[in-house]
Amino acid sequence: MHRKRAFYIGRFQPYHLGHNSIINRIADEVDEVVIGIGSAQKSHSPSDPFTAGERVMMIRNALEKEKVPNYALPIEDIQQNSLWVSHVLSRTPLFDVVYSNNPLVIQLFEEAGIPVKQSPMYQREQYSGTRIRKKMIEDNDWRHLVPDAVADIIDEIDGITRLKNVSRTDID
Amino acid sequence: MHRKRAFYIGRFQPYHLGHNSIINRIADEVDEVVIGIGSAQKSHSPSDPFTAGERVMMIRNALEKEKVPNYALPIEDIQQNSLWVSHVLSRTPLFDVVYSNNPLVIQLFEEAGIPVKQSPMYQREQYSGTRIRKKMIEDNDWRHLVPDAVADIIDEIDGITRLKNVSRTDID
Amino acid sequence: MHRKRAFYIGRFQPYHLGHNSIINRIADEVDEVVIGIGSAQKSHSPSDPFTAGERVMMIRNALEKEKVPNYALPIEDIQQNSLWVSHVLSRTPLFDVVYSNNPLVIQLFEEAGIPVKQSPMYQREQYSGTRIRKKMIEDNDWRHLVPDAVADIIDEIDGITRLKNVSRTDID
Amino acid sequence: MHRKRAFYIGRFQPYHLGHNSIINRIADEVDEVVIGIGSAQKSHSPSDPFTAGERVMMIRNALEKEKVPNYALPIEDIQQNSLWVSHVLSRTPLFDVVYSNNPLVIQLFEEAGIPVKQSPMYQREQYSGTRIRKKMIEDNDWRHLVPDAVADIIDEIDGITRLKNVSRTDID
Amino acid sequence: MHRKRAFYIGRFQPYHLGHNSIINRIADEVDEVVIGIGSAQKSHSPSDPFTAGERVMMIRNALEKEKVPNYALPIEDIQQNSLWVSHVLSRTPLFDVVYSNNPLVIQLFEEAGIPVKQSPMYQREQYSGTRIRKKMIEDNDWRHLVPDAVADIIDEIDGITRLKNVSRTDID
Amino acid sequence: MHRKRAFYIGRFQPYHLGHNSIINRIADEVDEVVIGIGSAQKSHSPSDPFTAGERVMMIRNALEKEKVPNYALPIEDIQQNSLWVSHVLSRTPLFDVVYSNNPLVIQLFEEAGIPVKQSPMYQREQYSGTRIRKKMIEDNDWRHLVPDAVADIIDEIDGITRLKNVSRTDID
Repeated sequence: MHRKRAFYIGRFQPYHLGHNSIINRIADEVDEVVIGIGSAQKSHSPSDPFTAGERVMMIRNALEKEKVPNYALPIEDIQQNSLWVSHVLSRTPLFDVVYSNNPLVIQLFEEAGIPVKQSPMYQREQYSGTRIRKKMIEDNDWRHLVPDAVADIIDEIDGITRLKNVSRTDID
Repeated sequence: MHRKRAFYIGRFQPYHLGHNSIINRIADEVDEVVIGIGSAQKSHSPSDPFTAGERVMMIRNALEKEKVPNYALPIEDIQQNSLWVSHVLSRTPLFDVVYSNNPLVIQLFEEAGIPVKQSPMYQREQYSGTRIRKKMIEDNDWRHLVPDAVADIIDEIDGITRLKNVSRTDID
Repeated sequence: MHRKRAFYIGRFQPYHLGHNSIINRIADEVDEVVIGIGSAQKSHSPSDPFTAGERVMMIRNALEKEKVPNYALPIEDIQQNSLWVSHVLSRTPLFDVVYSNNPLVIQLFEEAGIPVKQSPMYQREQYSGTRIRKKMIEDNDWRHLVPDAVADIIDEIDGITRLKNVSRTDID
Repeated sequence: MHRKRAFYIGRFQPYHLGHNSIINRIADEVDEVVIGIGSAQKSHSPSDPFTAGERVMMIRNALEKEKVPNYALPIEDIQQNSLWVSHVLSRTPLFDVVYSNNPLVIQLFEEAGIPVKQSPMYQREQYSGTRIRKKMIEDNDWRHLVPDAVADIIDEIDGITRLKNVSRTDID
Repeated sequence: MHRKRAFYIGRFQPYHLGHNSIINRIADEVDEVVIGIGSAQKSHSPSDPFTAGERVMMIRNALEKEKVPNYALPIEDIQQNSLWVSHVLSRTPLFDVVYSNNPLVIQLFEEAGIPVKQSPMYQREQYSGTRIRKKMIEDNDWRHLVPDAVADIIDEIDGITRLKNVSRTDID
Repeated sequence: MHRKRAFYIGRFQPYHLGHNSIINRIADEVDEVVIGIGSAQKSHSPSDPFTAGERVMMIRNALEKEKVPNYALPIEDIQQNSLWVSHVLSRTPLFDVVYSNNPLVIQLFEEAGIPVKQSPMYQREQYSGTRIRKKMIEDNDWRHLVPDAVADIIDEIDGITRLKNVSRTDID
């Protein structure tokens, strides 16, 4: 029997409760969610501190409790928009629909004839990767903004120290 | 609580019962198995007919029945052996041990200080990707050599036609 | 008999009447014009909406009426200035002279010992890719700024919709 | 008015009368022929002696006398079959049909939903790049196997000397 | 007998007396200094005017008088921070310690378990690549800020003309 | 005063007495020898066991006793012959002449207008990288075929074990 699958892509730096809310709501409409981890090749930078492998762990552990059947798969950036849909399709299980609010993602999938739906809404001011990373650097509380499992992983890899270090400008 | 994880890499063209036997035996010794899908960028060739996404599906569906906690993650080839371990580590969850019988894989992980164990044995003459692809091309029976879920996926994507076509030499 | 050829490079996003005027004037001085389509790998972005193939069509169709013997050839960006002249030379027919007002292009060709002439002038405030793309996004009239053949192609590929979509910021 | 276009790809090392015959016959069925010059990045090797730019010149000059409306466009190899059709489409004008006898090319375009027809026949034993390059290296006559314009270009670039040199094994 | 080696990385655009002072002080503490020339692939741009080969010459000639045993080796940028340490290690002789004040460099080497020390201090306002290139463009005196050997090489390659040209904006 | 420099390229897997003899004889004719370490990105394979950094060390230490002023610089493979000379020139100090017996190297430098001389002769049957690596794998004596300093480095990095391991076929 064919399983209906949806594709959702993000950078997940880190995976937060906003993402978690979206994925759960997408899961209500399909059998499985294919989660693309964008900019998979990036890590150790102020806007992309975590490796693809670390982000795979975050998503897997966070969704384990939620019982959302999912695939969390790294998608490396490709420097050519015209190849991007083929690139995604070659690295993911077959999916039936894309959920996205990103205009470029929508345009590229639509040109390829793949159905796109608007992502479920969530409080974007509250849950934002940029805002969470800023809190991490400034030692403000960020833990209530991510699933517990994500906070545990960030602690285990000493992620806050890493983020703070790579965010400093050259010292002297 | 820390979960003990093992890493195992293969090309899985296709994922067969030999692989399945290895993964199950590794799973007896650790909490989770991180399965690297090598040569992830390859597909549509006689020795690498299936895309990374198709191989992710094969592994996931085959192991679903087995209840082996696993991550099946594409690993693209990198043209520099000296960078390969870092490449793998950046795309995978943390793991404690590598299972491999491949001398290059063993050497590279050992130089990096990561423990390597010999893979569990299986009947390599019987279960071999090369042999299975040859049977597929020659219309001999191959279905008993792969998990049922893998045969289903190959049928769904019309994989035998694809393999036969890309294996023909230029016609005239 | 040797044909005298000139090389001219641009991004042509889109090909407009300023470009057309330059090429026509270069054509007065040589037998054939080799037109390099720069950033060939780019498309579907606010500053580079059209693919290399679409830009080839624009140039070819626009110049068909003008009877300017020309080659319109995609040139992908290369990340090393020191290799750029060799890169261009390997992808183009032999040429005798370069027409350019771009200081980097001039410097690189001159270091390689290839003669460079200043491009013919045209009204740069009037005819500018940036200005034309802005008009396209804002629904102001842009058709009088490009050759008729170019407007036809942009309509055929629904280029204005594409440009508008990829130029929107992330919606919510 | 829409022009019907066909796509044909080859390496054209060199462009010979067999290719010329095919292109002419394809031209009978469409308005324009888009000619992809494969392995565009290769040159100066025994099997790929000529640069993409040199091959563009060969094709253009040979077809000038034939009055076949055509685009001769370099297509670089891409190491991923799953991206190859998108790669071709992004660098070429829109086309309606592909002519090919290459099983991989056929399979990839058919999976992408693009119509493929078998290439017109010609005497492949007689006209073959491999055979022509062998004749060039061994100082046997090859000129009757290529269009006159191609022989002229090979002379102009001293192509036989280049091919002989890059085909020698390391001397001592 | 094992020689103690230190690694120091910079872009050296150009190599100036601040760098020279650091290298000399590092040389007091080790037997040999391995000097990584970063962004080796870059040249002919306003912030990176000199090729890797030119920078090798600058360093070699400047240090010849100083009698500091050293290796000056080009290190190309790699787009993945997680691979960067392996990349450096594969292109350099074995070293025992890294000297750096760059937070990213420090973080990456420390994650890899390689000891890092703070670089010796020097007058950064006085000796700065940015400041020296600005002086070069504006015809202010820069020669007292670099070793004599470096000034000689910049003259020999006509480096000031190159820097001025690539720093101009598009003329018309 | 201008120093006359020669360029010589090899893979140096490992650097042996044949290479050493060539470099010494080239050094009789110029002031400095620029030694390109080809296939710099390769290591840990049966034909390319040593990293670029290890090969830099071999050459440097071997030539230290000989007092040959030299630069040993890694040159990564580039997949386009037409760009190769520019690639070499951008990573090396200026040189006046190339010494090579490799037909492709000769052809590429001659097309670029750079003088090429034949390399000095040596006993190629005796001193050959292939033959030395075979002896290493088979535990035959190889030490008399390389400079003492090279043997020391190979011991220090446990190079024989590495070569043997990466040369084994997959075990089971």
